[in-house]
Amino acid sequence: MSISIEKPTLLLDKAKTMRNIERMVARAQAGGVAFRPHFKTHQSAGIGDWFRERGVTKITTSSVDMAVYFAAAGWQDILVAFPVNVRQSKAINKLAHEVNLHLVVESVATAVTLNNFLGANVNVWLKVDAGSGRTGIHWQNEELLTDVAYTVADAPRLNLTGLLTHAGQTYRATSPEEIVAVYDETAVRLNHVRDLLHAEGHNLLISVGDTPACSIVEDFGRVDEIRPGNFVFYDVMQQRLGACLPEDIAVGVACPIVAKHEVEHRVVLYGGAVHLSRDSMVVNGEVIYGRVARLTKDGWGQMLYSSKLVSLSQEHGILKTDAKTFDSLDVGDVLVVLPVHSCLTVDLYGRYTTLSGETITKMRTNE
Amino acid sequence: MSISIEKPTLLLDKAKTMRNIERMVARAQAGGVAFRPHFKTHQSAGIGDWFRERGVTKITTSSVDMAVYFAAAGWQDILVAFPVNVRQSKAINKLAHEVNLHLVVESVATAVTLNNFLGANVNVWLKVDAGSGRTGIHWQNEELLTDVAYTVADAPRLNLTGLLTHAGQTYRATSPEEIVAVYDETAVRLNHVRDLLHAEGHNLLISVGDTPACSIVEDFGRVDEIRPGNFVFYDVMQQRLGACLPEDIAVGVACPIVAKHEVEHRVVLYGGAVHLSRDSMVVNGEVIYGRVARLTKDGWGQMLYSSKLVSLSQEHGILKTDAKTFDSLDVGDVLVVLPVHSCLTVDLYGRYTTLSGETITKMRTNE
Repeated sequence: MSISIEKPTLLLDKAKTMRNIERMVARAQAGGVAFRPHFKTHQSAGIGDWFRERGVTKITTSSVDMAVYFAAAGWQDILVAFPVNVRQSKAINKLAHEVNLHLVVESVATAVTLNNFLGANVNVWLKVDAGSGRTGIHWQNEELLTDVAYTVADAPRLNLTGLLTHAGQTYRATSPEEIVAVYDETAVRLNHVRDLLHAEGHNLLISVGDTPACSIVEDFGRVDEIRPGNFVFYDVMQQRLGACLPEDIAVGVACPIVAKHEVEHRVVLYGGAVHLSRDSMVVNGEVIYGRVARLTKDGWGQMLYSSKLVSLSQEHGILKTDAKTFDSLDVGDVLVVLPVHSCLTVDLYGRYTTLSGETITKMRTNE
Repeated sequence: MSISIEKPTLLLDKAKTMRNIERMVARAQAGGVAFRPHFKTHQSAGIGDWFRERGVTKITTSSVDMAVYFAAAGWQDILVAFPVNVRQSKAINKLAHEVNLHLVVESVATAVTLNNFLGANVNVWLKVDAGSGRTGIHWQNEELLTDVAYTVADAPRLNLTGLLTHAGQTYRATSPEEIVAVYDETAVRLNHVRDLLHAEGHNLLISVGDTPACSIVEDFGRVDEIRPGNFVFYDVMQQRLGACLPEDIAVGVACPIVAKHEVEHRVVLYGGAVHLSRDSMVVNGEVIYGRVARLTKDGWGQMLYSSKLVSLSQEHGILKTDAKTFDSLDVGDVLVVLPVHSCLTVDLYGRYTTLSGETITKMRTNE
């Protein structure tokens, strides 16, 4: 590697990232679905360009600010996959004038407010809760679905476009088969809603979008668009779900070792919650905050499965290792932490460092 | 309030913050201990000034970068309470020339390396693990304590200054009595180490520093310095530990309501893991990510105990409420989330907004 690590550094493997992008582009093409990748994972205009080079023209963001950032980077077809926040009327209105804007609505009140403050037309997707239990109109709530659909259809500034869901429950799945089953059930439920509203005279597209399902389903079924995001980098959670292989994980945080303790073969990393996020997963009854690999001249090596990050404070990460690994590590060495959830880890940084030492900037949340 | 909330906004109640600072200054004075507050919680030169106005001259940081930031803001006596990261030799050396620098060492190897790269003298504290199990030399490891003490004492650039610990186990306490017991035990253990090393000819100070203990112990005992940090803002975790009252919590994140769902009286906030951090606590067997209060014209009201933030995704926060509260809230209203752990929440922001609408900037991690 041509970079020298002084402190926790977000490393990006460009080759892996490109491969992840190409694979998902190919999956969408083969499946006959539109591809509107979610850019909340990388949040970077530079990485966005790699999608553009692969023919992507439509994107998803998770906030109005993120849409503003990518509009400034030249993206012209942007879906904000978050319930419309009516307090951002000014920014939304400005965007509506600048790009082909898609918004998500799940209540009559928001549809009315939105229509009233808009000075340009937008495309509206109804947010449907197809089983995740987070937000959206429940797929069986026919009355509300019909009410909101009519309200949107009748509003001059709103083009009723489709039904949108995020089947976040795939993240709770325990096998690839379960992920596929959740996907199929989601598609069936959305088509049920589509048929219902079709009978009322509305023609709607269907947009779905979690990385686990988009990475493994064989048949996208009667769906028009997919919006996965995490796949650009993947992470150890996705690997555990069977959505990627360890060698697909394209980001890691290089962390210097600052102390070692024989007890439990503990290695103390300069790399804590402010560098990795506190997202965790349970493996064999134990909570872990990430896996580690050795820094190599080409990036990082294989995951050290006998080592696990078991505790994080603000700046410290506590790694438990086996005796042999423990003995092979010294204070001043660098380990690469592969994150449990790359979206939240990446969000903590202002820039990426590629394996060739190049810096790629990204937007920052809460600036 | 003279500010209008459009999106998740970190609110700072200056009056509460000042009161928290004054109270801890008074506690340190009454207890006859030096006060070296940890600035990792607020990370702001502007808020640092409020400490300076109360006579504080010595501070603690959790990273070299944070020490550089506060040195630039005029602080001249800075302790970096993190094991020396030898990969930052250049930055450490520069700081050592500029300020009265205090560093933390816990191995012979680091002491030797540090001495070799330094061109100016620094004060060295031995990091002692007095029971927290995170990092530091175990208080009963007399051989290592003696070895490191001798190495430091013999190194021309290192002034052996004291023993330092962070009794993080107070955060696992279930009662104020237990916190006091942990504090007393920590002080006894550190004094045991001090006596041991005194017999070898070393004269050492003792520095301790967690907010729960510093907020409630009656007698600081045979300790020379305290380094609490979180107390400047406190949070719902501290309240639960009995270290503060709800009205002492000085930061909150104002979050617009973007959706409501009758089922379970769910309210969807624009405020997720990237605005609050994923730190959580378990209350009556349930994991919660924060409490909420209503936005008022003076700041925020009382905690709504019947409402709890039960789930966070990247941008969404899911609040469960009672029927009455649910009915009183509308899409477009704003709730203030009182964080579980203010340090990690604040770390996510580039600025504070005071209740009078003033902006206070802070440093950002991972810039």
